[in-house]
Amino acid sequence: MEKPSLPKGTRDFGPATMAKRQFILDNIRKVFQKYGFLPLETPSMENLSTLTGKYGDEGDQLLFKILNSGDFLKDITPQRLETKNSKLLTPDISEKGLRYDLTVWRADRPQKGRYREFYQCDADVVGTSSLICEVEIILMINEVFKGLGIQDYTIKINHRGVLNGIADVIGAKGNEVPMFVAIDKLDKIGEEKVKEELLTKNFSEKSLSTLFDLLNVKGSNKNKLGFLFTRFENSPSGQKGLHDLEEVFELLESYGATDDHVEFDVALARGLSYYTGCIFEVKINNVSIGSVSGGGRYDNLTQAFGDKENLSGVGFSFGVDRLFDAMEELNVFPKDTQVSSKVLLCHFDEASFRYGLGVLAKLRKAGIASEIYPDQAKLKKQLDFANKKMIPFTIVIGSDEMNSGEMAFKDMEKGEQQKLTVDEIVRKLKS
Amino acid sequence: MEKPSLPKGTRDFGPATMAKRQFILDNIRKVFQKYGFLPLETPSMENLSTLTGKYGDEGDQLLFKILNSGDFLKDITPQRLETKNSKLLTPDISEKGLRYDLTVWRADRPQKGRYREFYQCDADVVGTSSLICEVEIILMINEVFKGLGIQDYTIKINHRGVLNGIADVIGAKGNEVPMFVAIDKLDKIGEEKVKEELLTKNFSEKSLSTLFDLLNVKGSNKNKLGFLFTRFENSPSGQKGLHDLEEVFELLESYGATDDHVEFDVALARGLSYYTGCIFEVKINNVSIGSVSGGGRYDNLTQAFGDKENLSGVGFSFGVDRLFDAMEELNVFPKDTQVSSKVLLCHFDEASFRYGLGVLAKLRKAGIASEIYPDQAKLKKQLDFANKKMIPFTIVIGSDEMNSGEMAFKDMEKGEQQKLTVDEIVRKLKS
Repeated sequence: MEKPSLPKGTRDFGPATMAKRQFILDNIRKVFQKYGFLPLETPSMENLSTLTGKYGDEGDQLLFKILNSGDFLKDITPQRLETKNSKLLTPDISEKGLRYDLTVWRADRPQKGRYREFYQCDADVVGTSSLICEVEIILMINEVFKGLGIQDYTIKINHRGVLNGIADVIGAKGNEVPMFVAIDKLDKIGEEKVKEELLTKNFSEKSLSTLFDLLNVKGSNKNKLGFLFTRFENSPSGQKGLHDLEEVFELLESYGATDDHVEFDVALARGLSYYTGCIFEVKINNVSIGSVSGGGRYDNLTQAFGDKENLSGVGFSFGVDRLFDAMEELNVFPKDTQVSSKVLLCHFDEASFRYGLGVLAKLRKAGIASEIYPDQAKLKKQLDFANKKMIPFTIVIGSDEMNSGEMAFKDMEKGEQQKLTVDEIVRKLKS
Repeated sequence: MEKPSLPKGTRDFGPATMAKRQFILDNIRKVFQKYGFLPLETPSMENLSTLTGKYGDEGDQLLFKILNSGDFLKDITPQRLETKNSKLLTPDISEKGLRYDLTVWRADRPQKGRYREFYQCDADVVGTSSLICEVEIILMINEVFKGLGIQDYTIKINHRGVLNGIADVIGAKGNEVPMFVAIDKLDKIGEEKVKEELLTKNFSEKSLSTLFDLLNVKGSNKNKLGFLFTRFENSPSGQKGLHDLEEVFELLESYGATDDHVEFDVALARGLSYYTGCIFEVKINNVSIGSVSGGGRYDNLTQAFGDKENLSGVGFSFGVDRLFDAMEELNVFPKDTQVSSKVLLCHFDEASFRYGLGVLAKLRKAGIASEIYPDQAKLKKQLDFANKKMIPFTIVIGSDEMNSGEMAFKDMEKGEQQKLTVDEIVRKLKS
C-alpha cells in the first residue's frame, strides 16, 4: 500500500516546524494582548449564504464548499440535474463553506507561499474612526517584528482618499477600478506595461503622464504629503486622505515612535475594494515572498455581515505561513525553538529500567522534560534514539549506578560524561 | 438584514472563552512536552481516499466532504447523473474531506457536548509495545487534571484481551462484536436491557449469568485481577490482557505513583474496534458530560494509513471542548484567565489624548497591557468602557495631570484613586 498523499497545497507540520510556528504565534499573541486586543475565534465552517457574494465572483470561486450530508440529491428534479450546470446546482447540494476571510482556506491553485490551508492572525478594531487605530497597527507590527528578530521590512501605507484624489486629478473619476487594478501591478509588471493596460481602458496619454508624475513622487513621507497637498487642491477626497495620513504620522510622533519603517506608497492599491481609509501592506525586504501582512480601514463591511449599524473599523492580519517562510530564509529563528525532552534515561535490563522510572519521576517533578527509552535495547540504539530526537542529555543507569546512586550523566553534544546524583543533575539542568 | 446564523453545532469563541481554552491548551501542551511528546499537526483536509473505509460505513457518513472546485459535473455522464444516487456520485464530485480522526470535524447531529467542530489534543506513541506508554498516559492525565484543578475523576482502564477472555469463558467466541456493543451500553441502559439485547443475539441465559458474574467483579484493581486470573485459566487471550494490566499497575508503582484514580473496569469496551491492547476512558465525576478523554493500544492501524511496517502504538486524546464544559460546570477555571488590558488611559481633549500616548508608550515598554480610549468622549463613557471590558485600572489625564506629571490612577473594583507618576504606576502594576 502506498503512503497516502496529502491534498495539494496542504502540509503536515512536524515537531521542528510546530515549535517555530508556535514561536511566531506566541509572539503575535503577546503583542496583541499588550495592545489590549481580545481574542476571538469563529467556526471554520459558515453557512454559504453568509460567505458568498461578499468578495465578488472570484472570491466565491475560491471558497471550499462542503457537500451536504446524507442523500443530497434527493430533492433535486431530474430536469435540474440534466442541466449539468455545476454553478446552478451548487446551492442545491452545498449549504456550508470553509471561511475565506478571517481566512483559513482558499481554493485557488497552490503556489509557493500560497497555501490552501494557512494560519492568519487578524486584529480588528471596530466601532471607532479614530486614527489611533492605524497608529496602533504600525506600533504592533514594529513590536512583532522586533520580537521575531526581523529588522529589514517596510510598512507601506496609503489611503483610499489619495487614490481617489489621483483619479480626480487625472480625470479618471468613475473609471477608478481599472486604474486601481493596473497600478496595483506596478511592482510586478513595471510602468510600461501598466501604461499599455490603461491605454486600452480609455486613459489618455496626457492623463497617464500626470498619473505617473503623481505615482513617482519621491522623498520623505512628509515631502510626499506636501507635494500631493498642492496637487489635490481641488479634490476633497484627496485632501481627506492626506490629512488622515498626516495625522497618523503626528500621532506616531506623540507616542514617541518614529516612522522609520513606514513608507507612504502612493501606488499601494490592494485588491480588496472594501477599504475606505488607510491601506497597509508589510513587506519583508530581500526575501522571495516579502508580503506578510496587510489590512486597512473599512466603513461599511460590518453591515454586509449583518450588523445593524454601519461601523467603521480597521483590520489587518499577519500571514503566519509567509512569516514562517521568510524567517527560515533569513535564518532568524532562535536556536532553542526545538521542543524535545532535555533528558533520555537509558538502561540495561528490567531492574535498571524500573529504577529509571523513579529517576524519571524526580526529573519531571522538577519540571524537566524527560523520557525513558521504552524498550529493552542495546545502549547504542538508545543513544542513537537520543541523537535522532535531538535530546541533549542522557542518563545511563546500570547496576553500579543503582548501588552508588550516582548516574552516568552525558552531554550528547560535547560528549562529556560525569557521575552525578539525581539531585545534582536536577540542579545542573535547572541552572 | 438579519444577523447571519452559524451552522448548527459550531460556535464563535469570544475573549473569555478563548482565554479559558488557551488555559486548557497551554496546560496540556506543557505536560505533553514534559513527557517528551513532540508536536505534530496534519492538514484539516485529506484526500477522501485516505479518509474513507477506515471507520466503517458509519464513519464514512460522518465525514464532511468538500465539493470539488470548478465545473465538478463536467465529466459525469448523464446516465450516471440520472441514477440520482448520492452515495454513488459522491466520489465523482468530491475528492477531499475534513479529517475525522486526529479529529476536528464530525458531521453527525449536534447535541450537548458533541460539537461538529471541536478541538482535540492527541498524544500517540508509535513503534513500541512497551507498557510504559500506557503508564505514561495515566501519569499525563493525572498531571493535566492537577494543572486544571480537576480532582474528582476516574481513569477507567480495560484490555481487549480481557474482553476476549470473557467471550472465551461464556462461549461467545466468534460472537464478540454484539457482546462488546451491548456491554458498552451498560452505563446508559443498565443490566436488564443489556441482557434483553443479548438474548436476541443468541446468547443463552446461562452464558449471560456467567457474563454478569464477571462484569460485576468488585474490589480493588488487584482483587479484580486475581479473581479474573482464576476464571481465565483456559483463555490465553484473557491471560495476556490480565498480565498486561498487572504490569501497568506495577510500573506505576515503580514510578512512585498510585493507582488512586485508575479503575480496572471490565465492562469498558469503547466503540472503536481497532484497539488491540489496553483501552482507556476518563470520566470527570459529578458533571453532566463526564467522558473527556479516551484511547488505547492498536497494533495494526499504521498499516491502514500506509506505513509499511505494522507498528504497535498507543494513542489517547483530550476532548478540549468537553474539558471546557466540565470545568465551567465545576467552576474550577482560575479567576485570572480573562485576558484584557490592565489599564485604560482616559483623557479630556486632544492635548491630553496626545499626552496620554506618551504615557501609553511607557506602560507598554514596561510590558503592561494597556490601551487608550480612541475617541473624544465624556469621561463617564470612557470609564464605562473600562468596566465593560473588565479593565481593572484607569488613568485619567487632564491639564492638572499634564502640569504636575502625577496621574489620577484608579482601581476600578475598589473605587480607590491615587495621584501617581507614571513610574510609580508602573512599579505598582508590576509588583
